[in-house]
Amino acid sequence: MSFMFQKMVVAGVGLIGGSLALAAREAGLVKEIIGYGRGEENLRLAEKRGIVGRYFLDPNEMPQGVDLVILATPVRAIVSLAGSFLPSLRPGCLVSDVGSAKEKIVEEMEELLPSGIFFVGAHPIAGSEQWGAEAAIPDLFSGRRCILTATPNTDRGALSKMVRFWTSIGASVEVMDPQLHDRVLGIVSHLPHVLAYALVNMLVQAKVDSVDLKAYCGGGFKDLTRIASSRPEIWRDICLVNRRAISESLGHYIDHLERVKQWIWDGEGSLLEEEFARANEIRRQIP
Amino acid sequence: MSFMFQKMVVAGVGLIGGSLALAAREAGLVKEIIGYGRGEENLRLAEKRGIVGRYFLDPNEMPQGVDLVILATPVRAIVSLAGSFLPSLRPGCLVSDVGSAKEKIVEEMEELLPSGIFFVGAHPIAGSEQWGAEAAIPDLFSGRRCILTATPNTDRGALSKMVRFWTSIGASVEVMDPQLHDRVLGIVSHLPHVLAYALVNMLVQAKVDSVDLKAYCGGGFKDLTRIASSRPEIWRDICLVNRRAISESLGHYIDHLERVKQWIWDGEGSLLEEEFARANEIRRQIP
Repeated sequence: MSFMFQKMVVAGVGLIGGSLALAAREAGLVKEIIGYGRGEENLRLAEKRGIVGRYFLDPNEMPQGVDLVILATPVRAIVSLAGSFLPSLRPGCLVSDVGSAKEKIVEEMEELLPSGIFFVGAHPIAGSEQWGAEAAIPDLFSGRRCILTATPNTDRGALSKMVRFWTSIGASVEVMDPQLHDRVLGIVSHLPHVLAYALVNMLVQAKVDSVDLKAYCGGGFKDLTRIASSRPEIWRDICLVNRRAISESLGHYIDHLERVKQWIWDGEGSLLEEEFARANEIRRQIP
Repeated sequence: MSFMFQKMVVAGVGLIGGSLALAAREAGLVKEIIGYGRGEENLRLAEKRGIVGRYFLDPNEMPQGVDLVILATPVRAIVSLAGSFLPSLRPGCLVSDVGSAKEKIVEEMEELLPSGIFFVGAHPIAGSEQWGAEAAIPDLFSGRRCILTATPNTDRGALSKMVRFWTSIGASVEVMDPQLHDRVLGIVSHLPHVLAYALVNMLVQAKVDSVDLKAYCGGGFKDLTRIASSRPEIWRDICLVNRRAISESLGHYIDHLERVKQWIWDGEGSLLEEEFARANEIRRQIP
């Protein structure tokens, strides 16, 4: 059997990194998978679950002969971790990530890495509010979209290798400019997380006599705030790394809410119905 | 077998009204159930499904001897419909509703109804984004909260009858002041609907080159916007009837988003992490 990669390191063996390792093994893409992380308990679990064959905790202990490094840590750790690994990487090694924000990471990675070590940014649009090696499953990416980034500096061979890698585990791959990626995801993913967190916080900020508002939350509220169970550090990092696109989309959203608020206050029934009916129709079109 | 009510009219045999009819029949609370509505197709389906025994389409054809009328129409139609029914109602008849906003309805119903015809407002916190008699199920309210309204004008006998009615179909009943109800629900239910509709509309308002943003919506976006499939007329009405509480909570939410936006723009990592971690913790406490 011929493998695409001989030795893959997954740095951050959580829901995404762990699931990617499982998927790559199942698809026969990688001969050996080694985990890296800072929390040994999680790595021990990953080893026990067969997600990684072994692991290391000190970046300096990066094994020899690694030909694929997947950086699956919170986004702000990606570039500095790549810097720590760098002295141990041999020419020809492919470095990729799974971060939800891309522009800043791609820019900094391109600055950091010497020629001969290739970077291709990746963002699989999959996940859940669960986390850790415990939550990893082999088919997390199956049928899901994975965006790969391309810039004028991207090595075309490395890019097509990553296209093949993600396609082989069942993802539907799309190549996109990192800045465009951040604007798109800033609206469809990052903004909703900020909104969900803020809505949950309303439950304690809004004082309605001495009522415990939590007791009155129905299915709608719970659906809306499911992603507020996502890991705070992950989303802090994404907000910091994609601050421009997120503040911009949040600003547009606030402007829109201001208009709706005025319509409600003024009792503008037909404008409200139009607003809601339009959303109804668009929601129906989401695949 | 002794029934609590002999003849119940359900006006608006949709998800809520239809489910209530099914539940009341199943619990043996009502001898005869008659539907009223404007859409005959839906009423025919309700009859076929055994939700109602028969139905009428003209308010003047309200049958004789009705002792319970449930107004389950969109909230803005409730009071005027009660007015049309009024000439046919005999003393002792109990009128109730299932509207999601209460203050205005309770106030207007108390003005409208003569002594001897009793009104108790009700709001079962249950539902889904589906609608029509087709979607009705007998256990929709089982284990769910139902808020009944009480004011100084509420007849205590009628109130305790409605407590028994809702308790008998498995709801957990709470009696609340209508204004307080509207402030609570304005935050935990009405606000989320407005936010979901607005978020969906961002998909077409935000122009990101020529990208079709709908294609990039993942599970988080879909969870958040599931309730944007709810019926526009229903939510237009709720916004109009509960305009004060909804604009107020929307205003507070906007203020909060403005703060978060500033934190994101300023790169305030620890404030953002605190915001998200707090939401994480509160979300965990929602029953």
